[in-house]
Amino acid sequence: MTGCPALTEPVPPHAQEAGASVASALARVRDFIEPRLDRAVAFSADAAPRLVEAMRYAALAPGKRLRPALALWAAEACGGSLEAAAPAAIATELIHAYSLVHDDLPAMDDDDLRRGRPTCHRAFDEATAILCGDALQALAFETLARDMPAASAARACLVLARAAGAEALVGGQADDLAAERGWVADLTAAPAAEQVAWMDRINRRKTGALFLAALELGGLAAGADAARLTLLARFGRSFGQAFQIADDLLDAEGDEAAVGKRVGKDAGRGKLTFPTVEGVAAARMRAERLGAEAAAAAAELGPAAVELGRLASWIVGRRH
Amino acid sequence: MTGCPALTEPVPPHAQEAGASVASALARVRDFIEPRLDRAVAFSADAAPRLVEAMRYAALAPGKRLRPALALWAAEACGGSLEAAAPAAIATELIHAYSLVHDDLPAMDDDDLRRGRPTCHRAFDEATAILCGDALQALAFETLARDMPAASAARACLVLARAAGAEALVGGQADDLAAERGWVADLTAAPAAEQVAWMDRINRRKTGALFLAALELGGLAAGADAARLTLLARFGRSFGQAFQIADDLLDAEGDEAAVGKRVGKDAGRGKLTFPTVEGVAAARMRAERLGAEAAAAAAELGPAAVELGRLASWIVGRRH
Repeated sequence: MTGCPALTEPVPPHAQEAGASVASALARVRDFIEPRLDRAVAFSADAAPRLVEAMRYAALAPGKRLRPALALWAAEACGGSLEAAAPAAIATELIHAYSLVHDDLPAMDDDDLRRGRPTCHRAFDEATAILCGDALQALAFETLARDMPAASAARACLVLARAAGAEALVGGQADDLAAERGWVADLTAAPAAEQVAWMDRINRRKTGALFLAALELGGLAAGADAARLTLLARFGRSFGQAFQIADDLLDAEGDEAAVGKRVGKDAGRGKLTFPTVEGVAAARMRAERLGAEAAAAAAELGPAAVELGRLASWIVGRRH
Repeated sequence: MTGCPALTEPVPPHAQEAGASVASALARVRDFIEPRLDRAVAFSADAAPRLVEAMRYAALAPGKRLRPALALWAAEACGGSLEAAAPAAIATELIHAYSLVHDDLPAMDDDDLRRGRPTCHRAFDEATAILCGDALQALAFETLARDMPAASAARACLVLARAAGAEALVGGQADDLAAERGWVADLTAAPAAEQVAWMDRINRRKTGALFLAALELGGLAAGADAARLTLLARFGRSFGQAFQIADDLLDAEGDEAAVGKRVGKDAGRGKLTFPTVEGVAAARMRAERLGAEAAAAAAELGPAAVELGRLASWIVGRRH
């Protein structure tokens, strides 16, 4: 990833600077976590070779490693070490990787391209992609249960299980699907406020919950107290909403080559997104307000939360 | 389930008696665990309604509840209470339920019938079935992390994650699939010993690992020492092999109405099973030897392991 390519509108110099800083901080996260992620998806001969290949393909695919960054920076914000937070970073990335593999399946979103490469079921086959996702999920829990300090490992598993479960990640995905397939009342003609509430509810579960889990797990790894965990959660709620709107804006406005996946598909499927419901300008304003709220929570966490604060400002302006 | 229906060969009176005893002990397990399983798959409004319906359909489907029985009886064998072992029983059953839902998918075994009812993707749809399995897996870890005593919850999550992961449950399924689809060297003309080794390796992971996990989790819930856990593992290894051969025998000889799923499918797909490799009589002898080994391990565990011992003798003679 480079600093801020493919900008389509002028960006003020201080934002460019912040962008370059976040880009290099994210690059440091990748340098730290990717060798550890690589070791996490190494198996004995008991794991079927094709399955392992698919798991490595999915987990080691190029990505921003946002969830690892949140876990690691939350730990730093609470005075903990990156090393202690590595299991949290790896586990949340494994859950994310599994959810992408399953979301892309023909029976789900039926996507051929992900992070600029063929999706897992395209590169391998559907059965292997299903099993790959299943095994990545189990591996996330194995990582936490084995590598988190004993005092917090069980709580860490509970946090991750809730974030990955029927009331969060999977529930949000299921409701998203239900709307797309017409299994729930059509909201396209509903008042905007109702549409916004629906989208918020989906996003809170489908993407927000795992961000929150990454932050909480990072905090737990650092032995954070309740007050700091509450601030991390406040940061995470605003950050998660800002991220999702920014992601929708990328779909509405983005350049496929820079984004690395098919764009314009939300509008094509008549899917509710902030840009389609309230327009691009209003959605961007909403994202910026939420990004500022997240940055304020980071400021309250103190100077060690500098990376979280920068990330919140950067996320709403990203173009890829 | 009734005592011993659909017997096709004479069964000695003492075996009939043991069978009736196991059947009523399994019925007691179901009476104990099913209300708890029912409560485990109850969710807030954050879980999508169709997803919840599918999860309940899959988790509460009629079944023998063998894994709960193993967890509960292992706890009993180690002087623990059934209540303490309930999370272990529920978690292993949830993993089992999820694996059936995913194994039945069109991209996998493409089965229409399971436990005498339409499979999950038939009763709902493929996307919901995929998400249902995903959420059941997360729920298994949530159950352990939340409800096991703090001292053993993290270890319990680790035991379950390993049993459910790439080197066990999913790895076995992936290798099974690889053989079926010709992704690995064809073993149908290989020496019988090689075929037996392959089947053992598949079964140890695909079914045996979760049995072992149920036993170990039950033992952990009872605070069992290392010696007892070792005996439980010895029981479990023999039991798991005996179970799989008995299951293959049911497929080769069983009556579809009594078994509750399509039979004869292994032979139809040219799949390696003990009955097809070494013949029905030799496979039955092998199952009986393994059942006796398991019963011997149970005897070493002492009088509180009576149900485990009976189960081992019963499993090799079951006809449904």
